[in-house]
Amino acid sequence: MIVGYVQTSPAFGLQEKNFRQVEELTGGIKADLLVLPELFATGYAFTSREEALSLGEGTGGPTAAFLQSLAERTGGAVAAGFPEKDGIRLYNAAMLVSEVGVLAVYRKIHLFAREKFVFDPGDRPFAVYPLPSCAVGLMICFDWAFPEAARSLALQGAQVIAHPANLVTPYCQEAMRTRCLENRLFAVTANRIGSEKRGEQDLTFTGMSQVTGCKGEVLHRGDNTGTEVRLVELDPAAALDKNLTPLNHLLDDRRPELYLT
Amino acid sequence: MIVGYVQTSPAFGLQEKNFRQVEELTGGIKADLLVLPELFATGYAFTSREEALSLGEGTGGPTAAFLQSLAERTGGAVAAGFPEKDGIRLYNAAMLVSEVGVLAVYRKIHLFAREKFVFDPGDRPFAVYPLPSCAVGLMICFDWAFPEAARSLALQGAQVIAHPANLVTPYCQEAMRTRCLENRLFAVTANRIGSEKRGEQDLTFTGMSQVTGCKGEVLHRGDNTGTEVRLVELDPAAALDKNLTPLNHLLDDRRPELYLT
Repeated sequence: MIVGYVQTSPAFGLQEKNFRQVEELTGGIKADLLVLPELFATGYAFTSREEALSLGEGTGGPTAAFLQSLAERTGGAVAAGFPEKDGIRLYNAAMLVSEVGVLAVYRKIHLFAREKFVFDPGDRPFAVYPLPSCAVGLMICFDWAFPEAARSLALQGAQVIAHPANLVTPYCQEAMRTRCLENRLFAVTANRIGSEKRGEQDLTFTGMSQVTGCKGEVLHRGDNTGTEVRLVELDPAAALDKNLTPLNHLLDDRRPELYLT
Repeated sequence: MIVGYVQTSPAFGLQEKNFRQVEELTGGIKADLLVLPELFATGYAFTSREEALSLGEGTGGPTAAFLQSLAERTGGAVAAGFPEKDGIRLYNAAMLVSEVGVLAVYRKIHLFAREKFVFDPGDRPFAVYPLPSCAVGLMICFDWAFPEAARSLALQGAQVIAHPANLVTPYCQEAMRTRCLENRLFAVTANRIGSEKRGEQDLTFTGMSQVTGCKGEVLHRGDNTGTEVRLVELDPAAALDKNLTPLNHLLDDRRPELYLT
């Protein structure tokens, strides 16, 4: 199975320009699962909920159409972040899209910092979706900080976590090694680069997108100097064997009756 | 607050010799919380449950008495692993002991590999104990692999995790950085060095005992070349502020209603 990330540098509010950047980066690419950053087509640093609502869309909008065309070209599925407008609600969401259309939407459960002023928190449990190549779970950016996120996906059989991100802190990449190790699954963290200075926000995104192996190893970590696409071959079947030792199953050894949750 | 670990090299089955090693290493030491390895006085590689039972004891046994005398000398509390015999039951346990006696016993919940042939699994929830210096949670060795362990302690207010260990895999030290980061607490992982070749087991313990800071930083990591005591000063109050950002509380931001557990 070929997975990959597209590390972009979105221009705030310029959806068409951001689509073109992804098109240029992914020309000729084939991948079973390609992951783009959080909010890849709109930018991140909204100054108000109203501004974000004006850029929000549903699963019938231009971002879904763009991702479907990208999936057609790449021959697999694509996961990418977008501001999902659903009636009066607005979510920091991610779509999983194939050539036949939108397969799933995940609404970010753990909102980071000022996102709480802009988005509604996700209202649906973590869920896993079957692709021809593997079972994929979706989480977004700051969900990395909560072990319950990746755990919830692992317990539903996720072999690969598609993880669109707009990271501004230095912790995620190393923490994802623990997430993959403790759950024996792969992760593709697609981060962005660049800066956004808007209103009170002055954010620099840290790049270093990462494909993490199911034993916690870094299969590839990018840098933060430019946009890039990186493809990595992995065997998702390795994520099905949860035995850390012949006598230790990472999920079955859990003792939920003795945990506080 | 001064915390510390004692990295020892136990001789299998030679309790008195192992006590003396700890005495020699800790001469003149003062610490609010000192952590010794898992099963520090007996060794680890039991060839049968019967053999372990023969070395098991209760909280009125010689190990508790030794640890109480150590706590008197060091002026604080001591956490250390021992095989706890309770009727026909045998647990891979850890005691928290002060100069007044045994304050708490934790029975290892996640048994590693062949420990399953020797010990009964822990039968009590993770719990936290107040010391004059801070609230302490106990976990043992392989509990590191389960995020639910440290999380259960954090949710009960643990500021420092005392973590006796007999590590044979290379993962724990880095994973403990994630445990401390995601829960904003400190941890003292006391590992052993040396080898034990007994029956089918041929184990080499990896040393590199570690004091981990509440932002995931390594405050000190030892090496694996010798026995040592290491003291580190830390401010346990830092573990009370769970705000990763002014808008993100690491525990209150959890959404248990949306998790699978």
